[in-house]
Amino acid sequence: MKKLVRFGVSLDHHLLDDFDRLIAGKNYATRSEALRDLIRDNLVGQEWDENKDTVGTITLVYDHHVRDLTEKLTDIQHDYQRLILSAMHVHLDHDHCLEVLAVRGKGREIRKIADRLIATKGVKHGKLTMTTTGKGLS
Amino acid sequence: MKKLVRFGVSLDHHLLDDFDRLIAGKNYATRSEALRDLIRDNLVGQEWDENKDTVGTITLVYDHHVRDLTEKLTDIQHDYQRLILSAMHVHLDHDHCLEVLAVRGKGREIRKIADRLIATKGVKHGKLTMTTTGKGLS
Amino acid sequence: MKKLVRFGVSLDHHLLDDFDRLIAGKNYATRSEALRDLIRDNLVGQEWDENKDTVGTITLVYDHHVRDLTEKLTDIQHDYQRLILSAMHVHLDHDHCLEVLAVRGKGREIRKIADRLIATKGVKHGKLTMTTTGKGLS
Amino acid sequence: MKKLVRFGVSLDHHLLDDFDRLIAGKNYATRSEALRDLIRDNLVGQEWDENKDTVGTITLVYDHHVRDLTEKLTDIQHDYQRLILSAMHVHLDHDHCLEVLAVRGKGREIRKIADRLIATKGVKHGKLTMTTTGKGLS
Repeated sequence: MKKLVRFGVSLDHHLLDDFDRLIAGKNYATRSEALRDLIRDNLVGQEWDENKDTVGTITLVYDHHVRDLTEKLTDIQHDYQRLILSAMHVHLDHDHCLEVLAVRGKGREIRKIADRLIATKGVKHGKLTMTTTGKGLS
Repeated sequence: MKKLVRFGVSLDHHLLDDFDRLIAGKNYATRSEALRDLIRDNLVGQEWDENKDTVGTITLVYDHHVRDLTEKLTDIQHDYQRLILSAMHVHLDHDHCLEVLAVRGKGREIRKIADRLIATKGVKHGKLTMTTTGKGLS
Repeated sequence: MKKLVRFGVSLDHHLLDDFDRLIAGKNYATRSEALRDLIRDNLVGQEWDENKDTVGTITLVYDHHVRDLTEKLTDIQHDYQRLILSAMHVHLDHDHCLEVLAVRGKGREIRKIADRLIATKGVKHGKLTMTTTGKGLS
Repeated sequence: MKKLVRFGVSLDHHLLDDFDRLIAGKNYATRSEALRDLIRDNLVGQEWDENKDTVGTITLVYDHHVRDLTEKLTDIQHDYQRLILSAMHVHLDHDHCLEVLAVRGKGREIRKIADRLIATKGVKHGKLTMTTTGKGLS
């Protein structure tokens, strides 16, 4: 069951005006929603710092013509198969693929898979994105 | 046609030792490969700063029980349909979904879609990941 | 005159518990104070994105034995003299100096000085820190 | 004694062109110097991750009219006196001060001081900048 708590925040009116402009520019419907996002983003950072169970995505752009590359990336993914939830593959052009993996595990394990995939010869760009299981971020 | 150019880099031997340890820890096969990644990552940052044609992923974690949320997220995606290449959806648990969108367009447009999706009430965590079309990053 | 406005924020009680733990760990006295800091940090980021009048610090670590280095760094600082408010110099050990410059100007100008100083041969590490004039962040 | 090692890097010529443009824009004199900076910046990040002896700066912007604020900030600095190397104070306008502290210690201790200072009521903006003792970054 979701239980909402309401509390008061006091802010200088200039600061509040600027914040209202900022969140309008980002399409937030209410201040509460914008503040919740700032809070959650900080908590997600902490989850990762503390090596908790979490979720991340690994984004790779590579040239599939590079010899053995697709095979190598698949091999690494199989080594960590129990952590990989799903994969999405997009053909960007004749040469380039975008691959995004959804990964679940301890923060440190996810970093390890990301490091190995990104370091593979032929991967042109790679990024680990840290997100969350959503639990405890109600 | 790929044309490789070779050039010399001079480094203090202590610095080189530390760098070799760092890249071994990240599983790079050669120094060239590790340096290429550092260089490409800097160039990708510049592509985004200069609002060029580029590729990004938008990662969302949300509770699909929130009233009308799935519908709202779908509506926003349709507004920007021509920019969205593909979507991946993962069921994290009974309540939570992970959705990753692959998006292609000008950096500023991609930021706009990301802002709108992340600001939607019920989205618990959202991130924009900046990557690249791969072109010009040979 | 400072005029405080008070408004209500509603948060799920689990999220609030986690946030309270986070801010206690960082020694915040009240939730309002912690939220003000999250808000101000976002606004400072925007000031820099929009090339407004702002304040930054440039942190340099270098080996003062490198031939002509001190002279070169001083020359660059004189080129931008009207922007540099103050400088602090710390002797870290027999070889290394830490120098921190306080700079005021348009965001883009400050980036330019920072780039030139950090790129100077012999500077081992350099960082630009983006802060604010404090105005409009009451 | 500094001992330079020279090694070869191979890069696609398009990538090299783009890199050359990037480093010219940042005023680097040579590719080696630009690559050394990329490498050192990565190593500094690792020093902090591993809680080694390091150096940082803490940048604070505050309104000195806030009751007891100057006193509180001084008290905290005295609690960590052995870690603080030096301080620079700049009067930004009638109300606002910029204070920059140079701090030396384990990464985790420095984060702690930074957290306490930044969380103090009346500090409008605060940032921790992670740099290095310079040792082992020849």
